[in-house]
Amino acid sequence: MSESALTRRHDPARRGFGSDNHAGVHPEVLRALAAANGGHVAAYGADPYTEALQDVTRRHFGERAECWPVFNGTGANVVALAAMTDRWDAVVCTDGAHVNVDECGAPEKLAGAKLLPVPSPDGKLSPALVDLQAHGFGVEHHAQPRVVTVSQSTELGTVYTPEELRAVCEHAHGLGLTVHLDGARLANAAASLDVPLRALTTDAGVDVVSWGGTKNGLMGAEAVVVLNPDAVRQPRFVRKLSTQLASKTRFVSAQLLALHEGDLWLESARRANAMARRLADGVAAVPGARLTQSPDANGVFAVLPEGTAARLQERWPFHVWNPATGEVRLMCAWDTTEEDVDGFVTALREEAGR
Amino acid sequence: MSESALTRRHDPARRGFGSDNHAGVHPEVLRALAAANGGHVAAYGADPYTEALQDVTRRHFGERAECWPVFNGTGANVVALAAMTDRWDAVVCTDGAHVNVDECGAPEKLAGAKLLPVPSPDGKLSPALVDLQAHGFGVEHHAQPRVVTVSQSTELGTVYTPEELRAVCEHAHGLGLTVHLDGARLANAAASLDVPLRALTTDAGVDVVSWGGTKNGLMGAEAVVVLNPDAVRQPRFVRKLSTQLASKTRFVSAQLLALHEGDLWLESARRANAMARRLADGVAAVPGARLTQSPDANGVFAVLPEGTAARLQERWPFHVWNPATGEVRLMCAWDTTEEDVDGFVTALREEAGR
Amino acid sequence: MSESALTRRHDPARRGFGSDNHAGVHPEVLRALAAANGGHVAAYGADPYTEALQDVTRRHFGERAECWPVFNGTGANVVALAAMTDRWDAVVCTDGAHVNVDECGAPEKLAGAKLLPVPSPDGKLSPALVDLQAHGFGVEHHAQPRVVTVSQSTELGTVYTPEELRAVCEHAHGLGLTVHLDGARLANAAASLDVPLRALTTDAGVDVVSWGGTKNGLMGAEAVVVLNPDAVRQPRFVRKLSTQLASKTRFVSAQLLALHEGDLWLESARRANAMARRLADGVAAVPGARLTQSPDANGVFAVLPEGTAARLQERWPFHVWNPATGEVRLMCAWDTTEEDVDGFVTALREEAGR
Amino acid sequence: MSESALTRRHDPARRGFGSDNHAGVHPEVLRALAAANGGHVAAYGADPYTEALQDVTRRHFGERAECWPVFNGTGANVVALAAMTDRWDAVVCTDGAHVNVDECGAPEKLAGAKLLPVPSPDGKLSPALVDLQAHGFGVEHHAQPRVVTVSQSTELGTVYTPEELRAVCEHAHGLGLTVHLDGARLANAAASLDVPLRALTTDAGVDVVSWGGTKNGLMGAEAVVVLNPDAVRQPRFVRKLSTQLASKTRFVSAQLLALHEGDLWLESARRANAMARRLADGVAAVPGARLTQSPDANGVFAVLPEGTAARLQERWPFHVWNPATGEVRLMCAWDTTEEDVDGFVTALREEAGR
Repeated sequence: MSESALTRRHDPARRGFGSDNHAGVHPEVLRALAAANGGHVAAYGADPYTEALQDVTRRHFGERAECWPVFNGTGANVVALAAMTDRWDAVVCTDGAHVNVDECGAPEKLAGAKLLPVPSPDGKLSPALVDLQAHGFGVEHHAQPRVVTVSQSTELGTVYTPEELRAVCEHAHGLGLTVHLDGARLANAAASLDVPLRALTTDAGVDVVSWGGTKNGLMGAEAVVVLNPDAVRQPRFVRKLSTQLASKTRFVSAQLLALHEGDLWLESARRANAMARRLADGVAAVPGARLTQSPDANGVFAVLPEGTAARLQERWPFHVWNPATGEVRLMCAWDTTEEDVDGFVTALREEAGR
Repeated sequence: MSESALTRRHDPARRGFGSDNHAGVHPEVLRALAAANGGHVAAYGADPYTEALQDVTRRHFGERAECWPVFNGTGANVVALAAMTDRWDAVVCTDGAHVNVDECGAPEKLAGAKLLPVPSPDGKLSPALVDLQAHGFGVEHHAQPRVVTVSQSTELGTVYTPEELRAVCEHAHGLGLTVHLDGARLANAAASLDVPLRALTTDAGVDVVSWGGTKNGLMGAEAVVVLNPDAVRQPRFVRKLSTQLASKTRFVSAQLLALHEGDLWLESARRANAMARRLADGVAAVPGARLTQSPDANGVFAVLPEGTAARLQERWPFHVWNPATGEVRLMCAWDTTEEDVDGFVTALREEAGR
Repeated sequence: MSESALTRRHDPARRGFGSDNHAGVHPEVLRALAAANGGHVAAYGADPYTEALQDVTRRHFGERAECWPVFNGTGANVVALAAMTDRWDAVVCTDGAHVNVDECGAPEKLAGAKLLPVPSPDGKLSPALVDLQAHGFGVEHHAQPRVVTVSQSTELGTVYTPEELRAVCEHAHGLGLTVHLDGARLANAAASLDVPLRALTTDAGVDVVSWGGTKNGLMGAEAVVVLNPDAVRQPRFVRKLSTQLASKTRFVSAQLLALHEGDLWLESARRANAMARRLADGVAAVPGARLTQSPDANGVFAVLPEGTAARLQERWPFHVWNPATGEVRLMCAWDTTEEDVDGFVTALREEAGR
Repeated sequence: MSESALTRRHDPARRGFGSDNHAGVHPEVLRALAAANGGHVAAYGADPYTEALQDVTRRHFGERAECWPVFNGTGANVVALAAMTDRWDAVVCTDGAHVNVDECGAPEKLAGAKLLPVPSPDGKLSPALVDLQAHGFGVEHHAQPRVVTVSQSTELGTVYTPEELRAVCEHAHGLGLTVHLDGARLANAAASLDVPLRALTTDAGVDVVSWGGTKNGLMGAEAVVVLNPDAVRQPRFVRKLSTQLASKTRFVSAQLLALHEGDLWLESARRANAMARRLADGVAAVPGARLTQSPDANGVFAVLPEGTAARLQERWPFHVWNPATGEVRLMCAWDTTEEDVDGFVTALREEAGR
């Protein structure tokens, strides 16, 4: 082996709260990749790992579910929305949705879907919010509302209850719209509510899911899961033309299998959530600090005492969410430890006391 | 570890000639992925592996080279062509170019580039072939020829000499066009000619390269390498909006490093090429078989004796390239062995003798 | 002449307040079309009418102005925004902007521009409203704010003062953005303020104008007027690929000439504005009616007494703008008469008194 | 009336052979526009002229035909192809098709349709030529052939017989493809063959027609005519989002009515064809000149004696089609006269004799 491959170019002891995708890969996933290696198998998804993934998908989401592995979250969202919409269609979302603010316009620019954002202080949609944009049906001057997209857990760390999701889905379906769920952190939501994945998706009436794995300990693997085949057209072709078909798909599928065949997805999400809860409790107890969102999943949104953020970021990287208010976002990952959390809270307390 | 991650769902002893992406991952690459694991690093390419990859890229391609890691070959081509073209531009290519026939129209549908194909029996472009489509400059009715794209090695297993590439580049530049090189198998071409990568790219006048790794033993990692920064606009944004930015980029970059920091890329390509040469020699010696393209790199194109293909495919999967003529494509990979080749040739001889 | 061409299939005495594009063509424009007829001239804009239009454009907008005639308003906006943006760019607009709600998503779907809407109760942008969306510069995850688009007069019948426009332009330029003005009703704004067109465009710092003519008495002719050539790239090619290049451009240009070479544009706009003012005064004086927007140009927005709208619409078609509040929109055109207005007001008074 | 509207800026006595769209508007069409003027009618096609056009369309094309008026030929083709294809689809065409070489890539860039060109020396497709590109069905790597587009009359002045068209349509339908006909000069083909329009469209199996009028004496009016509603999806929305919906549609429809309600379309096309035949005969009789295509419709393709073209172009503008061979294109229009033709031939004879 060459020296380079042995060289570690980073400090594996360093962790922070910058993002759950700053974390690495769960060791079990690496072992699964090694097990999937060797010999030749067909490319582009015609391999036994991708086939097995279909079974696992149906176990989680029900008998009609189809799983289309892709590379990343933006890819999953673009493939899903492109397969769910026609040229003249539009997608209702929150103003802070990942598809609206963090994908460089890919939903519009690649999927050709006009986004119809509505303001949402807690990151959730509701029937009333959907109605703000769901009109103009049949009028050729208006891009036609066709899909409602929700994020679970949301970009603000909050979680829809199954009832809240069902209300949005029923309302959307009643208007003739379908529902997409951006599940980059679906595992965290399910762990938070202690319900199976299908309670938040199939059983709630969701039509298509962007099923996340990367933020939950994979190297890089997500999937478009079609729960209602009538809600999409030709995801196979849409995935390919959207550049999201891996030649060696076996290694994408093997990651998703490693996470979801057993309980690894749940264990990892539970840990991240538990650390976020511990962190939220710790931060909230510091004088001058306050939580700004309910820490339902693995993210903590808070206003820190003035002047404390910059010094803390040196040791524990994290994002300032709103420079005007000083609100910060602290994300926990599958590998966040109690020591990480307690160390941060202690340091925050010290900084606040200066 | 769960049982699933240990379960091998395929026969690692099975190999064929279906494609170099039917092969798995070189063990050294798996070790490099493990070394890059652990702790937290910044996402989206702001990590030490991606930084180190810039140095390695400059060593291979010269001081101006910039490296943008992406997921797959179609992604690399789409990002490169989108960064090289404006809305009104067109790209000259061969009729059999991967961008023209194997990407489901992604160059047109995502990058918005009209393709201008020219017929090429050996998969190569030449100044004369470029001229078949390079006209109409300044006329608003015509999409404007802006880029010439070549594949090295070609989709037909042939290899441009450095002089041939230079002739195309000089001609293109003389017309005001830039040159993109689809290098999904660039390593095989360099190994075949026994020249460094830059002899076939930077020194030949190429402006942007899709630098392949997946077909040469990676799990899934390619890169857009910009040799001439004046030939592109904003590859950073184009990559993101094209869904080709990995959140955990460190694991994409670590693969490319493992392959290209030392000589692993060359060793692997040499082996694949040597096996293809051995296979070509063996096939050509079978009565009734003949080669249809020069086996310059790791692919063998041949017409097999009538009626032999179907039975051989059961044991060694491969593609019938042209059902009308019976031409087949036999690809060798980094892990193809002499036993594979000799076994195939022996079986072919037997089938031909029935 | 065939009978068909003589057959009038509509009642030319009928007028309403549905839209300024429900009106027909000013007789002088028809005469100009006849004068431009006969013989052969070059197609696609290389004709003497289009050449003369350049001079007239420069007279209205200044020496750097370039005029690109197109078919319709959506076409003008799409060509302008496409020429002003790159793939990764976004456009700040009001939530009620024509580009956002009345073009079926064409700015996103054809021009590839992500729209960044901000709420605006009176249809105008301001520096503070621009700031709600003008952030994330240089961050690849965000579509890059590149253009601010304003409508003058606005979709709500209000008019920016030159100072208000200048403030938006200066602010946009300070942020590195350019400014597009949707001038489908620019003539009405200029007539309202009694200023020349350049006071609301070139002199205010606007970079590109969609210059309207159809709503002001043309048959179908608009133009993209580039005031700052540095703000666009290749409008010639963008117009063609956007399907907005007329083969017999002379007849598009002849219309624009007929309107703008003399004072026809101003006379027509003044009449429409005066009728709107008369209508607004009349409506406001009816018990139970109230204006909802300032009737600055040729549109009147009002809440009518409950139950009056439906019967009035039979004789004078108009749009209910907001079914929830009963707000209606009453548009006056170049051919609206005092009798039309007074008849409507009388009828409204009668209906209100039932 | 202002002086400008009276000013003629061109010489109405001047005619040439540059293009049938260098000609002006038939006087009867101008009269029809005047008759359609006055009063208010609903915009965007909800007017009595557009309604009457539906009847006329059904008379020409059969009971299922639907007519969607648009501005120009590129617009008609883009709307038609966009309504006939999905994201993953492709369109088979000749290499010289207008959609392939004269629309700046709009079919790819706006309609998102990959074009699959085949070489055609006479501008026509045949079942065998279609087969060159109609493969790869169901394979996700290939954009899916979905539409065959033919031009009638062709860009090379040739005309398909009804049998030739029927053969292409039956073959296409047998493969699961639909057929689009670019009928910018459909009238000339019908006049040439002395058959009704439906013999070349509905009865031949064509699914969608771009129905031309501008080249046959209109100011600027074309239409997408849907013969088989199952072959399209939502042309209403596609037209709007493609910027091809006129606000004052009555004036587009009135033009199409004036041309097609009676026999004006046929008279005009017959005259243009007759002049082309006279011109072809005259040119062919000049020593050193020869025809290069069959002058079936209103265009003459010929190689002129060396050195004659430049001087002739001064008096009668026309295009050099192929600078390498000296081939020229001479187009006749609805207003071409026998004096024009005879004058040109006389001058050619003189130039050739120098």
